[in-house]
Amino acid sequence: MTLVSSDDFKFGMRHIAAAVNVISTMENDEPRGMLATAVCSVCADPPTLLVCINKSASMHAAVVESGCFCVSVLDERQLATASKFLSVNGAERFNLCDWDKLQTGAPAIRNALVNFDATVVNAVEAGSHTVFFGEVSAIRFADNAGRPLLYHNGCYSGLSLEPLS
Amino acid sequence: MTLVSSDDFKFGMRHIAAAVNVISTMENDEPRGMLATAVCSVCADPPTLLVCINKSASMHAAVVESGCFCVSVLDERQLATASKFLSVNGAERFNLCDWDKLQTGAPAIRNALVNFDATVVNAVEAGSHTVFFGEVSAIRFADNAGRPLLYHNGCYSGLSLEPLS
Repeated sequence: MTLVSSDDFKFGMRHIAAAVNVISTMENDEPRGMLATAVCSVCADPPTLLVCINKSASMHAAVVESGCFCVSVLDERQLATASKFLSVNGAERFNLCDWDKLQTGAPAIRNALVNFDATVVNAVEAGSHTVFFGEVSAIRFADNAGRPLLYHNGCYSGLSLEPLS
Repeated sequence: MTLVSSDDFKFGMRHIAAAVNVISTMENDEPRGMLATAVCSVCADPPTLLVCINKSASMHAAVVESGCFCVSVLDERQLATASKFLSVNGAERFNLCDWDKLQTGAPAIRNALVNFDATVVNAVEAGSHTVFFGEVSAIRFADNAGRPLLYHNGCYSGLSLEPLS
């Protein structure tokens, strides 16, 4: 089977608008996290979602070690948090935002639209990445939820206020 | 481990804005397809994406049988196609839109932002669903690409034209 090139695949994926999330866990008592769009609902029974993480990312080893992760779905008012998150590394990223722990101990970003706190129940290798399946033991919603932060075609964006017709 | 309820999980997932896709394949020489947001990029090398399909959906058996699927990422101008897709079943859905075949033989919706034509390389069970991993052998982009159709909080939406700041 002939496959498309990695560049064509990446260019195609730029067309898929997606929510911006922080995936996070603890490593040696320090918070670790990364921005990610590769998060997907799997099933509601049991409540399960998945995240795809590059094996070369420091988060990969941290999630393998901790066996848990939290997905924080960012509010568009957290654009600055997202941008700053890319400007520093390691535990320093968590100095830029408020966070606390829910059930598993993974850091949950406060004021995210929703936090999904999950325990790894399966890990499937796929090329350069591992897909971690997590069962959700805690959910937290923002008190004052806004609108989702989106990423599309290399840019941050928000939802249109105009209804589609 | 105590898990959150299915209802809480579904309510949480409503907060994640996502692209609207048609997942499609052939079954007994007839096109089969469903609308889905549970599509996720996995890795670029090899070019791989995944789709989550309920085992009780007719598409599930069709993808198992054919071993391939196409993901068509809908343009917001295809809102009517998406709505009609829910109003009829089976091959009749494909009378409502233009489609053709790329590499695998799965039907690709014409004028979608992008079509990813994929061969199943792994299938992982997770509760009520199966996660199908597909390696991408063909990609097609729309000649006159518009903006992505999104689904959020139970409604169709589009991207904001205003830059975030």
